[in-house]
Amino acid sequence: MYKLFTGPGTCALASHIVLEELGLPYEAVRVDFASQAQRSPEYLAINPKGRVPALVTPRGVLTETPAILAFLAQANPAAGLAPLDDPFAFAEAQAFNSYLCSTVHVAHAHKSRGARWVDDAAAMEAMKRKVPQSMGEAFALIEHGMLRGPWVMGDQYSICDAYLFTVARWLDGDGVDLGKLPRVMAHRERVAARPAVARVLAAEKG
Amino acid sequence: MYKLFTGPGTCALASHIVLEELGLPYEAVRVDFASQAQRSPEYLAINPKGRVPALVTPRGVLTETPAILAFLAQANPAAGLAPLDDPFAFAEAQAFNSYLCSTVHVAHAHKSRGARWVDDAAAMEAMKRKVPQSMGEAFALIEHGMLRGPWVMGDQYSICDAYLFTVARWLDGDGVDLGKLPRVMAHRERVAARPAVARVLAAEKG
Repeated sequence: MYKLFTGPGTCALASHIVLEELGLPYEAVRVDFASQAQRSPEYLAINPKGRVPALVTPRGVLTETPAILAFLAQANPAAGLAPLDDPFAFAEAQAFNSYLCSTVHVAHAHKSRGARWVDDAAAMEAMKRKVPQSMGEAFALIEHGMLRGPWVMGDQYSICDAYLFTVARWLDGDGVDLGKLPRVMAHRERVAARPAVARVLAAEKG
Repeated sequence: MYKLFTGPGTCALASHIVLEELGLPYEAVRVDFASQAQRSPEYLAINPKGRVPALVTPRGVLTETPAILAFLAQANPAAGLAPLDDPFAFAEAQAFNSYLCSTVHVAHAHKSRGARWVDDAAAMEAMKRKVPQSMGEAFALIEHGMLRGPWVMGDQYSICDAYLFTVARWLDGDGVDLGKLPRVMAHRERVAARPAVARVLAAEKG
C-alpha cells in the first residue's frame, strides 16, 4: 500500500488527487507544518529535503510532484492518466508539470517561503509584493496557450489537470486578477466537480 | 532533424550533451541573451516563455529540461540513457531532475535573475548574498545521498548525469565551498572526460 505524506494547502494535493482517482489503497499522512514536523528527524529520515509530498512505495520513497505523478500514471497504465505510449505527448505533459514546479510554484513560494532565498525582512516583503505579477504572468501563459481545454492536454483528463488544479487554488491568495483567467477558472471548477477530487478536498479539511 | 535553442552557461547544456551523446543529427542555435534575443518576437513564437532550452522536433517544440531529457531517452531507447522499463527507477531519475530544476536551478537563479521575483535593487543584493548557502545546502543533499556514484543513478550513465554536470558547473561562480563536495567534483570530472561532453563544451566556446 502507498503512503503519501501531505500538508493542507501544499502541492501534495496533486499526488493525493491522483491516488484517489486511481482507486488504489493508500494512506494519506498529514505532516504538521505548524510544529515544523517536516524538519523532525523522523520525517527527514523519510524525505531528507524536509518537504512534501513524499510517496512511500514498496520499492522506496519518491519525492517531487512531477516524478510522483508520472510514476502513478506509468504504474497504472489502464487508468489512462498520461499518454504513455507516445514519447512526444508524454514529454508535453512532463513539460507542463515541469513548468508548474520550476516556475509557477516557485513564483508562489516567494510569498511565504522567502526565507529560502533571503535572510532579511525587507527583501521578503519585496518578494511578496511581486507575487501577483509573477504568478499573473505565469498563468497568462497557461490561460492563452498551455491549457488546451477542456483538460490541460486536450480531450483527456490527465495528471496535469490534478497538478494545475492544485496550483490554481493559490491564485486567490496570491492576489492575481482572476477575471483575466476565465479558462483557468473554468478548468478549476471542472476538476473540482470530479468525485475523487471532492473526496480529497473533504479529507484535507477533516 | 532536431534543432536545439541554447545559450552558453545555461541549463540548455544538459539537452545539448544528451543530443551529442545520442549521435543524432541536430543543429544547436545560440540565442543571444546579450541582445535580449530570447524576448524577440521570433523567439517567443518558438518558446513563449522566452527561455532556453527549446527543442524543435518534427512533432513540435518541447521546453523544460526534465521533459526534453526524458523525451530524448524515451525516443532513443537503445542508448540506455534512462531506466525506461521500470516506472519506479524512471521516477527516481525524474525526481532527481525535478529537484535540479525546481530547487537547485532556482537557488542559482537568485544570483543573476532576481528581477523575476523582486523589483528593487536592495532585495536583489539580499538574494545574491544567500546563494552560496542555498546552493551549498542543495548540493550537500546531492553529495551525501542523491548522487549514488559513480553516476547519479548508480552504475549506468543517464540523462541525470548530463543535467547534474550542467548545474554543478555553476558552483564555482556561486561561491560554494567546493571542498565540501568531493563526490560532486569527481562526478563533474567524470562527465567532462566523456568525448561527447568535450565536443559540446568546445562548441559552446566556439
